[in-house]
Amino acid sequence: MTIDRTKLSYASSGVDEPREQAALGRVLHHLRATYNNRTGLGRPRLESGGFANVLDLGAGMGLAITTDGVGTKILLSRTPSEWESVAVDCIANNVNDLLCIGAEPIALVDYIALDVIDQDLLEALARGLRVGADLAHISVPGGEIAQVGDMLAREEGHAVFDLIGSAVGLVATDDSRTDLPSILTGESISPGDVILGLPSSGLHSNGFSLARKALSGTARLNLDEPHDRLAGRTLRAALLEPTTIYVDAVLPLLRKRGLIHGVANISGGGLLSLGRLSDTLSFEIVSLPQIPELFRIIQEAGDLSNEDMYATFNMGVGMVIVCSANSAQEISAHLVGLGVTPVQLGSVVQDNVAPGSIRLNPARLLGVGEVFRSM
Amino acid sequence: MTIDRTKLSYASSGVDEPREQAALGRVLHHLRATYNNRTGLGRPRLESGGFANVLDLGAGMGLAITTDGVGTKILLSRTPSEWESVAVDCIANNVNDLLCIGAEPIALVDYIALDVIDQDLLEALARGLRVGADLAHISVPGGEIAQVGDMLAREEGHAVFDLIGSAVGLVATDDSRTDLPSILTGESISPGDVILGLPSSGLHSNGFSLARKALSGTARLNLDEPHDRLAGRTLRAALLEPTTIYVDAVLPLLRKRGLIHGVANISGGGLLSLGRLSDTLSFEIVSLPQIPELFRIIQEAGDLSNEDMYATFNMGVGMVIVCSANSAQEISAHLVGLGVTPVQLGSVVQDNVAPGSIRLNPARLLGVGEVFRSM
Repeated sequence: MTIDRTKLSYASSGVDEPREQAALGRVLHHLRATYNNRTGLGRPRLESGGFANVLDLGAGMGLAITTDGVGTKILLSRTPSEWESVAVDCIANNVNDLLCIGAEPIALVDYIALDVIDQDLLEALARGLRVGADLAHISVPGGEIAQVGDMLAREEGHAVFDLIGSAVGLVATDDSRTDLPSILTGESISPGDVILGLPSSGLHSNGFSLARKALSGTARLNLDEPHDRLAGRTLRAALLEPTTIYVDAVLPLLRKRGLIHGVANISGGGLLSLGRLSDTLSFEIVSLPQIPELFRIIQEAGDLSNEDMYATFNMGVGMVIVCSANSAQEISAHLVGLGVTPVQLGSVVQDNVAPGSIRLNPARLLGVGEVFRSM
Repeated sequence: MTIDRTKLSYASSGVDEPREQAALGRVLHHLRATYNNRTGLGRPRLESGGFANVLDLGAGMGLAITTDGVGTKILLSRTPSEWESVAVDCIANNVNDLLCIGAEPIALVDYIALDVIDQDLLEALARGLRVGADLAHISVPGGEIAQVGDMLAREEGHAVFDLIGSAVGLVATDDSRTDLPSILTGESISPGDVILGLPSSGLHSNGFSLARKALSGTARLNLDEPHDRLAGRTLRAALLEPTTIYVDAVLPLLRKRGLIHGVANISGGGLLSLGRLSDTLSFEIVSLPQIPELFRIIQEAGDLSNEDMYATFNMGVGMVIVCSANSAQEISAHLVGLGVTPVQLGSVVQDNVAPGSIRLNPARLLGVGEVFRSM
């Protein structure tokens, strides 16, 4: 169970961090107790709170399972092609989380909450789910369309919609299943391991509440005018760029036993997501990719601090791979061959003073827990 | 992919039936195309639109998967014990659907959409998920808490929340897996089969938009006063009674090879849900249980037709089992032993005039497609 807080800035939202942690702790306590309901088939192997969990299926096979929505990015979508785009996000957010525990995604079921049946909306969402499913090599074997208009906010007289997905994948839990990639628990991550960053396509699906607030604030930027800093694209188009689906980039690497030590989907919390990979080791980033213009425009419009920007947005890095220094070359070559140029961000370190921390040296930020502070 | 229309009455909502069917057809067309993305592991075995789908896991095992929310029933919940109750519904709606394709439920992931982190709300929902998971013998291995207040309706200044679940189960797809119940495809349902109805605990999670409208209309019933026709319970308490979880009642029967021919979760559409069991056979109901007082109160308050009532509410029957006439006695004895007294509703018939129809003889209603009409 995770709280996706990327929709808010800690500094600006008044979120009471310790209170939230206490709430999450109570939730996890109850959900952890349900693990005892399964002793054989279906037993959960991981703690709740990671990118996904894995259920025992017997015979060395595990079922990876996760759930995620698209969030307030949906509020920016107003045309069929934009609805199609956010449906791709629904697939991406879920399958990218499955990759983080080493699984091969196989399917996603979707839940659409809406007011009245709108044929154009539904067909656009279905088209987007299909596009995403094709990119992720999964099926969408079912779903639910729920007419729950009374539960949805209204904008200009129309109810908004919501789109949530839950995805499953398969993973080998021991060496007997050579047809599946092996489960990634983070145990093989070691000091000296290299941290590779894969480029994001934009904001992905995170930080939209903050971005919308920043852009509609005093700056009042028009989302629908071509923007000279975005090569003539509109802000809306740049913001709605679908989240990259990393299956083709990462799955072939996962299939090679032991090549990858860890994978982190950079979603809620930006590079703080690295913290999910280890409780004891730290991550030292010595090089960051150039910050894409879209993030700069948001930061300037909202007069946002670097602390908030890096704790909310992916800032150009959508997915991280951790591997041994010896494997970095092979992995980079594979990625470059697919047109995905990774950035060598830094390395895993043993930091006894701040275990589990994320240092962003170029930005002079230290991430501990769920916030970045100036170093 | 199914449309849950129980939140609306066809007669009163202005829903344009053929237009909806066209929309759903286009959606299913796109989602059906994604099946080709999986040829071996993960291949869907059933058409979208049933209670759940089944994905091939190899070695005679299938993964059942479904998704469902709680819907507008949530809008009636205002206290921790009421929030706990709707979380039980989230488990029930999903696992009851898995039973319909013969699967043993193993896990559910939950998605909570809310505005601000409310510790009391989250802990109550987690408690309810635990209660439901214990009753269903499943784990809740993960979930998501999404702070998406801008997408949620507001009531009296507070944003509502939403709760959606996705559940998985295991099923034998051939005779080699004797440790799992066999997949139910409806193929073994035959004319002469007996239809057994299991009692519901109330409205379950369906028809709440119509019920709320009826109760808040001209009749303006106070939901929080003890009601003499509800044995002194309040209407709110009766409405929020959690959906029955039928795992203990039905799963042992599913484990006996061939004993059960079909299972239908009576949710959206009331007994019209039987239509999902067969495209060609019909269902003749000759006996209906006494209509519980709660449904009568709603019908009177909203001056609703029998057609709308039976097409929206379960009217006292929460789950249906179809079996051979020879097996009905054994199944009834098992259920009575668990304190669940089934009603023998009627039988499966070959009706060449109205194939796929549902006749409710005691109510003089004929169900064809997705509506009931007077006979």
